[in-house]
This record gives sequence, structure tokens and C-alpha cells, in this order.
Amino acid sequence: MAVLSFEESGISPADSFDMEDNTSHTGSHSSGDEDLQSQNERFSSHESQPEKRNIQDMCRQADQLFFHMLFQPKQGGCLMSTVTTPATVNGVNVEQLGANISAIQGDTGLAKFQFRATNSWINGGHNRTTIKEFYGVGQEDTTRTEPFVLDADEPPVLLGEDHGANPVEFVLHALASCLTTSMVYHAAARGIRIDSIESRLEGDLDLRGFLGLSNDVRPGYENLRVQFTVKSDAPAETLRELTKHSPVFDIVTNPVPVAISVHTEGIH
Amino acid sequence: MAVLSFEESGISPADSFDMEDNTSHTGSHSSGDEDLQSQNERFSSHESQPEKRNIQDMCRQADQLFFHMLFQPKQGGCLMSTVTTPATVNGVNVEQLGANISAIQGDTGLAKFQFRATNSWINGGHNRTTIKEFYGVGQEDTTRTEPFVLDADEPPVLLGEDHGANPVEFVLHALASCLTTSMVYHAAARGIRIDSIESRLEGDLDLRGFLGLSNDVRPGYENLRVQFTVKSDAPAETLRELTKHSPVFDIVTNPVPVAISVHTEGIH
Repeated sequence: MAVLSFEESGISPADSFDMEDNTSHTGSHSSGDEDLQSQNERFSSHESQPEKRNIQDMCRQADQLFFHMLFQPKQGGCLMSTVTTPATVNGVNVEQLGANISAIQGDTGLAKFQFRATNSWINGGHNRTTIKEFYGVGQEDTTRTEPFVLDADEPPVLLGEDHGANPVEFVLHALASCLTTSMVYHAAARGIRIDSIESRLEGDLDLRGFLGLSNDVRPGYENLRVQFTVKSDAPAETLRELTKHSPVFDIVTNPVPVAISVHTEGIH
Repeated sequence: MAVLSFEESGISPADSFDMEDNTSHTGSHSSGDEDLQSQNERFSSHESQPEKRNIQDMCRQADQLFFHMLFQPKQGGCLMSTVTTPATVNGVNVEQLGANISAIQGDTGLAKFQFRATNSWINGGHNRTTIKEFYGVGQEDTTRTEPFVLDADEPPVLLGEDHGANPVEFVLHALASCLTTSMVYHAAARGIRIDSIESRLEGDLDLRGFLGLSNDVRPGYENLRVQFTVKSDAPAETLRELTKHSPVFDIVTNPVPVAISVHTEGIH
């Protein structure tokens, strides 16, 4: 693992930080390679300098080092010299975050989550999803007393009655919210203060794909664009890199296997 | 295009129906090839029979033929003999659907849609998306007078306060609603009556991916499972095939390019 390899080499965490980006976002981002290259150049330029200097460079590169400190405080002093670590950063309880990571390091099974949803068709393009239970940290969640109920529909031009946003609009919401939360959580883990985040998303979709009117047009989005405006003293590129940890970004930019089964009950 | 090629050959539409599945869902479904193979075998077995017999087989295979009939009624008589075509099927106005397709065939630019969303971070894992405007059928939509406002958050175990479903749960909603609407619309186009649709979704996610604690774990879902229970006299496999037209199914099972830009404003 990235954080454990740090104990063997002062450079491993930063390397593995980018390795993780390259493997989990293959084909969706080219900046990972560039970062790895520039980072290695930076490390090599410090070869003749004290080990402490290398570690401080890495502290600015790899938030895994902060996680490393959180679950093994005795070895994490390096970050304390470069960032402040209050209990809460950007509204994220980083002490609890560290405790969670420590628990996961002790039992990787605790990291396995299963999220669930049920959906009922109402009429035409109108249907309703109910979300409540999920499994994580080794047990069924018991904190949610009421379910989240979400309606989806289509606008009149797509033969619906607009009882809710449509499915591909919900994809924009899922992506926006996940990129934002990923930036906020990973910034908190690195001690980066963020005062505000606004984003605007656009997705291009050609209806001929859904209608099956062309073999050359896909049913889904052809392109997605996300524009962030962030109030923070951190460099824009640093904040953009943090969004690469987003699960929904991974889901949208890389293939996810989906198994669909249908059981029918006759009408008559 | 699939429907136009029908004018040149009685077999093209059914072929292109499966070709479209194969191209738009490469790697996400293997049944497309099987369908194409079995379908060609069926057609070859009818080579010595009247062309009308072949067309009736195709009418049961390719809903494009229904679209074809809708925008070129004079050539679509074949479907009238196999399905009834009231103005509304499953709550979908198939006459309006046909009119839309006719318009798109006349000007493919009308099929180009752009969906949009804006998101504002509130605190920690809590953020809010607003969805209202979109572009489609050659113009900006003017029918939505109020925006859809969607809150996302994380449960306490993920350091949030549960002000809404979390981003990856919204992906389950988007997928469920899109698969359901795709089944309903394409069933309507084929004159297949559906009385009810219920679905249950499960997604497996290993938190080590988001936390960057392992190079071998992706941030997003590792697997998704969708179980449908449908009240209809149509075969289960036919209904499952209809879901392949889903834009969100395409988005989740195939890569979508996402361009992210970040503009920063200093705090001090």
C-alpha cells in the first residue's frame, strides 16, 4: 500500500500517489504521467540535500502522508511542520477521518461498502427511487431513520411531465457533488483551507443514440465539461488533482460492469 | 441510418438494431452478438419464403421499424399487422414520439441536446445542485419555470450529516430511472404493454480507492447489479434488451470524456 511503502522509502508515497491516479483513471486524464515526471525531477534535484527536505516536498505532494500521520502519529511529524491540523478542516472532521483510515488499515474489510436503491415506475417517463439502507464499515447502517425519495421524469419535449430532473441530469448532479466532496475531503486531509466552491456542468447528448437512429451515435453523453470556481489560496492545479479521487468521476470516465436481470409476471 | 437503410433492404433495420447495440455498448454486453447471429440464422431460414414473412419477423425484432412507420406511414404498414398503435402506450405519446423522430430525420441538428447543472458547496460533504435550463430540439427550453434543487451529503460514517443521498447513491438513482424509462419508451414504440416495473440496485465500492490507500482499488463502483420485476406479457429477454438503449447505462458501462477546469480566487 502507498502509505506503508513510505516506511521503506522517502519517495514511495508521492510515486504511489500518482500511480494510483494513473491506474484508476486510465485514459481519462493525461496529467498523471506529467505529474509523476515533474515530481521525479523535483526529487532528483534534491538528491544531495537532507532527507528532511525531500520529505517536506512530499508532504506538499501526497495527502496519503497526512493519512499516514493520522493512523501512525509517531511517524507523521513531517506534515505538522508544513500544515496545521485542527480537528475540523472545511467542515470535515479530520481526526475522525484518521480514525476511520486507521481502522481500515487494521481490517481492509471495513472499507467494503454496498450502496442500494429501489425504483418504481409511475407512468411514462416518471419513476421514483427510494434510498435508505447501505452496508459499510463492517455492518448495516442504522443511522438513517427516513429514506431519501427521488423522482425522475422527462421534460415535455421528451414526452414527460417534468415531475423531476431527468436521468442524465441526475448524472450531472452526482458528478458535481462527488467532485466537490472529493476536493473538500482531500483538501482537508492536506490542511488546505477552502472558503467556497461553485461549479457549472454541461453535457452534450445526441438523441439519435437513444432512439437507435444512427449506428455512429452513442446513447449517453458525448462530452462533459466541469468548470470550478474555488475560493482558496491553494494552486488551481492542486485543487483539480484532488478531484481525481472522486468515485463518480471514475464511474463516468471508466467502464463499470453492470449486470441486469429481468423477471416477468404476466398481465393476464 | 438504420431506418433509411430499410428502404434498400428488408433485413437492414434488424441488423442495424443489433449493430447499434454492439457499437454503443462495446464490452458491456455480449448478448448483442448472440442476437445478431440468431437473427441472421432466422432470416436465412426464411430465404425461400415470401418477403412479407421476413418483414413480419423483423417487425417483432426492431423497434426502429415502428419509428420508420411513424415518420413514413406509407411504408410502415408491416407493424400495423403485428402490434396495435394507440396514441399513448405505457403513458408515452407514441404519436408525438413519431413526430419528434420525423423532425429529427428532417434535421439531425434537432437531436442535439445540452443538459446543465450548477453546484454550490455548503459545508463538509454537503453541497447543492440546481438544474433548470437545457438546450434541445434546436432551442433553449422555456417550459421549466422553477429549478430542481438537489442536496447531496454523506452519512455520519462517511463524516457527513445525511442532508441527502450521497453522490454514488445518486448514480444508482440515475441508472435505475434511465433503464426504466428506456424500457418503457422502447416498449411503447413496439406496442408492448407494461403494467408495472420495480427494480432493485446494488453497487459494490471499496473506500480504499477514494482514500488512495491502494493502487489496486478503483475509487468508483467495482460492480453494479440491477434486478427488474416487470408485469408484462413480453419475454424477459426482450425487455432486458430494450434497456440497452439507456443513456445512463452507456455512461456507466463506457468511458465518457470529462474536462475539468478550476479557477481560484484567493482568500486573503
